[in-house]
Amino acid sequence: MENWITSNAKNEDLVLSSRIRLARNLDKTSFPHKLEIDKRKELIKLVENAFYTFSQKDDEFKTIYLWEKENIFNETFLERHLISKKLLDNESSAAFIVDKNETVSIMINEEDHIRIQSITAGFNLDEALDLSNKIDNLLEEKLDYAFDERLGYLTACPTNIGTGLRASVMIHLPAIGLSNKMNGVVNAITQVGMTVRGLFGEGSKTIGNIYQISNQITLGLSEEEILTNLKVVVNQIIHEENLLKEDIIKRYKYEIEDRIYRALGILKAAILLSSDECLKLLSDVRMGVEMGIIKDVDKVVLNKLLVETQNATIQQAVNKELSNKEKEFNRAKLVRERITEKVS
Amino acid sequence: MENWITSNAKNEDLVLSSRIRLARNLDKTSFPHKLEIDKRKELIKLVENAFYTFSQKDDEFKTIYLWEKENIFNETFLERHLISKKLLDNESSAAFIVDKNETVSIMINEEDHIRIQSITAGFNLDEALDLSNKIDNLLEEKLDYAFDERLGYLTACPTNIGTGLRASVMIHLPAIGLSNKMNGVVNAITQVGMTVRGLFGEGSKTIGNIYQISNQITLGLSEEEILTNLKVVVNQIIHEENLLKEDIIKRYKYEIEDRIYRALGILKAAILLSSDECLKLLSDVRMGVEMGIIKDVDKVVLNKLLVETQNATIQQAVNKELSNKEKEFNRAKLVRERITEKVS
Repeated sequence: MENWITSNAKNEDLVLSSRIRLARNLDKTSFPHKLEIDKRKELIKLVENAFYTFSQKDDEFKTIYLWEKENIFNETFLERHLISKKLLDNESSAAFIVDKNETVSIMINEEDHIRIQSITAGFNLDEALDLSNKIDNLLEEKLDYAFDERLGYLTACPTNIGTGLRASVMIHLPAIGLSNKMNGVVNAITQVGMTVRGLFGEGSKTIGNIYQISNQITLGLSEEEILTNLKVVVNQIIHEENLLKEDIIKRYKYEIEDRIYRALGILKAAILLSSDECLKLLSDVRMGVEMGIIKDVDKVVLNKLLVETQNATIQQAVNKELSNKEKEFNRAKLVRERITEKVS
Repeated sequence: MENWITSNAKNEDLVLSSRIRLARNLDKTSFPHKLEIDKRKELIKLVENAFYTFSQKDDEFKTIYLWEKENIFNETFLERHLISKKLLDNESSAAFIVDKNETVSIMINEEDHIRIQSITAGFNLDEALDLSNKIDNLLEEKLDYAFDERLGYLTACPTNIGTGLRASVMIHLPAIGLSNKMNGVVNAITQVGMTVRGLFGEGSKTIGNIYQISNQITLGLSEEEILTNLKVVVNQIIHEENLLKEDIIKRYKYEIEDRIYRALGILKAAILLSSDECLKLLSDVRMGVEMGIIKDVDKVVLNKLLVETQNATIQQAVNKELSNKEKEFNRAKLVRERITEKVS
């Protein structure tokens, strides 16, 4: 699978990534929040043993133990969408197995014992589901999952019971944002059992017009139905976004060009750049690329910047903690360098 | 003398121009506001006859009659600081004689019959006064001025009685502006008989940190005393501005660089630009040049843009009236082209 940050998926311009997450728990074992630390660490061993018995080479997969001292910037994993906020909260006894390409992540001791996640570039939910299912099947050969014939997979939170599946797409909707129509979209989505989150998942701000749209319901639907529903909703939203873009260009050509070129000009010029402003400006530039107004900026550069300009990644790059102003300075410097970079 | 817009006076970085204006009236003739139109036009002839008897070649000086139909953009003369708002208000029967280099302007039928103005680049009040006096002497040989032995030159407004002299410098004070100290400066200036106006004279907004500082009092002081007082005040203000700049650079290096480079970035990128925003951004860039932060923008370009981006000049350039949005579009286009221009 293609890493969403570094690959240029051509199939759908607005969708940055597609993600599948499966929640799994071991039978006859308390959920993580009820386990002692040593029991949790045993559980990590158990999952590792199950996973590494298969033909995966060591240099293809590795386990990252969040409590280890060298991992001072665990938040960078969250910023690369490899782990959840919840796993980070449990860092004293949580770990995840990740592939070299960073498209698969098996979180251990999140809210559930195991969270299998696969994330790929573009609008490719089926591909992501295939991979998650393969890993799920591998693990199931060695592990005894908590499963109820009637309910399906049992999970710590009742909202995940059933398939334990969350399918989500990360999508850029600048025209909907500009037209103040996102509230309407959120209401419509919620009514069909979907939910909208910000760039960094649950509880994160919806800044820079990037949204994660995912299924809310996992019970009573097959995996296929969940994916189909999500695809229909996302395609409708893409249609709406494209109509609005055409309308904006027709009615506000100069205003929108002004906004887009100013954003690019500021990103090329700024000496200090806050994270929020950076995301907003990147969104304007991305809109310019989507509209064909900006031709010399590659979307892969914009994807990379989404991650690289985040607070933890900025600090990890220099391997030390930075003051707010230092972060803003380093962020602006990085953006100035990257934004003129050509990637094909 | 050097035209303030197109010359790079090296003697004082912050002073864009020095201006002298002499108010003169003819003896035994009502002030302009009491004159019929035909009498006013006779007066124009009279002044022209007096002026053109001397050795000035025709292609060196010309008279512009503001009521002539081809002058649809009279406001451009105001924008180039060649005439006053008052002369423009009287355009149905006002004229001015101007030299090719646009450093001298003899306004006829302003508030007074005659207003001799000389304006030069940089901090060069003596040079400007010399030239105004020369023209004054030439005219006096042929015209009978209203003059009182005790009071001096008589003028329509009592504030101009005496020397009839207003000396002013146009100065850029961004650090004082940034530090919110301009109110204090204005108060101090007013107390020593000086006054502060905006970029386009009386009643104009003080935008873009450009101020005109001039003497308020013309009675009871010699021309020399007026100039000396003004020079002392302006030098004090320059000292204060320079101290504040050093302080800002010491305390807010990155913030000020950010502001300056962003301004330049926006000027290079914007598709629509309002007059006010343009003046503000030009001020930031000029500050960058003054501070040695921006090295590849010439101050002459910035001076030209001060004038060329004004509403009337923008319209004159395409010789038609423009909507607000068209003005903003043409202004932004002009700025994008000019700002990268090299002038030495």
